[in-house]
Amino acid sequence: MQLDMSSPTTTERVFNFSAGPAVLPEMVLEQIRDELLCLPGVGSSVMEISHRSQAFVEILDDARRRIIDLHQIPDDHEVLFVQGGATLQNTMIPANLLVDQNQTADCIITGTWGKKNSQDIQYYGSLNIAWDGAETNYTQVPTNSELNLTEGAAYCHYTSNETIHGVQFPEPPEVGEAPLVVDQSSDFLSEPLDIKRFGMIYACAQKNCGIAGVTTLIIRRELLERAGDRLPRYLDYAQHVKGASMLNTPPTFAIYVTGLVCNWIQNTVGGLEEMHRLNQEKANLLYNLIDNSGGFFLGHAQPSSRSLMNVVFRLESQELDSKFVTEAAALGMTGLKGHRSVGGIRASIYNAMPLSGVQALHDFMRDFAQRNG
Amino acid sequence: MQLDMSSPTTTERVFNFSAGPAVLPEMVLEQIRDELLCLPGVGSSVMEISHRSQAFVEILDDARRRIIDLHQIPDDHEVLFVQGGATLQNTMIPANLLVDQNQTADCIITGTWGKKNSQDIQYYGSLNIAWDGAETNYTQVPTNSELNLTEGAAYCHYTSNETIHGVQFPEPPEVGEAPLVVDQSSDFLSEPLDIKRFGMIYACAQKNCGIAGVTTLIIRRELLERAGDRLPRYLDYAQHVKGASMLNTPPTFAIYVTGLVCNWIQNTVGGLEEMHRLNQEKANLLYNLIDNSGGFFLGHAQPSSRSLMNVVFRLESQELDSKFVTEAAALGMTGLKGHRSVGGIRASIYNAMPLSGVQALHDFMRDFAQRNG
Repeated sequence: MQLDMSSPTTTERVFNFSAGPAVLPEMVLEQIRDELLCLPGVGSSVMEISHRSQAFVEILDDARRRIIDLHQIPDDHEVLFVQGGATLQNTMIPANLLVDQNQTADCIITGTWGKKNSQDIQYYGSLNIAWDGAETNYTQVPTNSELNLTEGAAYCHYTSNETIHGVQFPEPPEVGEAPLVVDQSSDFLSEPLDIKRFGMIYACAQKNCGIAGVTTLIIRRELLERAGDRLPRYLDYAQHVKGASMLNTPPTFAIYVTGLVCNWIQNTVGGLEEMHRLNQEKANLLYNLIDNSGGFFLGHAQPSSRSLMNVVFRLESQELDSKFVTEAAALGMTGLKGHRSVGGIRASIYNAMPLSGVQALHDFMRDFAQRNG
Repeated sequence: MQLDMSSPTTTERVFNFSAGPAVLPEMVLEQIRDELLCLPGVGSSVMEISHRSQAFVEILDDARRRIIDLHQIPDDHEVLFVQGGATLQNTMIPANLLVDQNQTADCIITGTWGKKNSQDIQYYGSLNIAWDGAETNYTQVPTNSELNLTEGAAYCHYTSNETIHGVQFPEPPEVGEAPLVVDQSSDFLSEPLDIKRFGMIYACAQKNCGIAGVTTLIIRRELLERAGDRLPRYLDYAQHVKGASMLNTPPTFAIYVTGLVCNWIQNTVGGLEEMHRLNQEKANLLYNLIDNSGGFFLGHAQPSSRSLMNVVFRLESQELDSKFVTEAAALGMTGLKGHRSVGGIRASIYNAMPLSGVQALHDFMRDFAQRNG
């Protein structure tokens, strides 16, 4: 296709490689559109109904149960929906999990998001950086033996996938006794996970499971007790559990979209094993082409730490990077410009990016290399 | 009309008197639906595009400018969009505005929401309850002379409209030198307001200006300096200003809806003066009927404190209340059951409730009184 995206009336959909907010499954968008003015049997838009109405209580519970089913979440973990994104979690995690200023949080930093998470810990206790890949501009994750862990740490935090650097842990790190806390904002529901290994998992929705404005938390119940009564209401996880994710009016529409996306993963894709297989197939298409390009495309991450979600690479010059992005956009492939801190190209291929989109990008890359190599 | 709302396939819209999330203008819903899969000229849904994209930056700026234009907000106030609803503001306000534990916040409590606001102040300083209407179950607002204000208070907080009790300040209270902070969650953009009088105005969107998941803040710039560097990032208003409401990924879709609603107020309704006139006309229809019902309908609020947004009344028995709600629902008027703490009936008639909906309710009430009086 050759789109004229400069026309304000163009209504043809592109392949959207945005790092987030990101592409949604088209069938989810169609369902939202079809029932936008009137949720069947309710008489109002899902955006207009009380969060206390039976219809919405069922929508929230349905979304929660789908996440529990997809990840086979054990009974000793709670599933919550809150607002404020990972950034508010950067505050809430140390506020809730550090009992006093003498406790230490271990942080494994493999990119920009892990670094941001570490910056608010000072307000609630001590920070120990267990590993930081800054020296090599975040091209890999550490091995377990490289981690400098604190004995008796209150928790250990890491970011499973770093969107800017395209670096992902192939397996969760082994951190001993400390509860493992993971920011899964960019790879939540992209593959199966053994939830028992985690004290807490959190993920904003706008990459793999919905739209911006809702964050899913999965938290081991025993951790809820640490905050005691020292926190104001919104910051206290136990209050959100007590309110069943309705401590205050939840972001109702965003939760509804999350439920629809989970339904799509379950019933159209076929579950997390199949989701993972598809994500591997998509990523391999691009990484194999990069590896076989004779150095025309240069991947950012080390092969053992490559992200299945964000394929980050560059060409031999910034001029060629720009030409690549411009030509791709003209062919209906948007959002490919890399983050300014890394440069080059970033193709974000989250759950909802169809194989056909990745194939189109692959073919364009091959053609571009032939014409410019 | 006589709807069978028990059928899950019914797609006829009702008159939705929900207290919030609440009715939206139908033309706004239609625009959302029409461009749901593809924002014209962009090639993706508004839900799928990066918050850093030119298209979304323009959407956010457009929403912000419309609020500035509607309220003629002076240059010394910032307009922000954040997440977490009024409940997170209950924390952020004292966290930012109380410089230390020795400072005092004055609170005027005219209902449930004002009381909730007062409960998190203890974590950051001292609370002085300047007035509390609890003794009469919140049927009125105080006069200025009844206020027990603190000399040198860090700020004075009140709730302009209490949704549960249907109590609204006809004018902002006079509180002297302390910056006036108001929760306008349920009457924001329902009438003109002299912004210069306020240190801060905040309002979640799901009643008068959009959907759940975004909160608008209007804050006098000099108040931003009080927090210094003592707060973690998400809690610090100055960080949100610095990030131009994009400290982290904002609730993009919710902000888009707010912009559309503001556009509707400006260009379809004709501005806040006309919005106010319409809101008065709607409320007067119901209050006049209540006052002329010979005691069949009993209003909760004192006439001088009556809300234009939430008309709260009861009938002579709970059985009659229930019969009223059931018969109204069968006629396509939903969300009329009063809050459990007050009982009876609550008709929420926010900006987007059309006059035709209030007229339908009025006619039903008159008919119901004739049949049961």
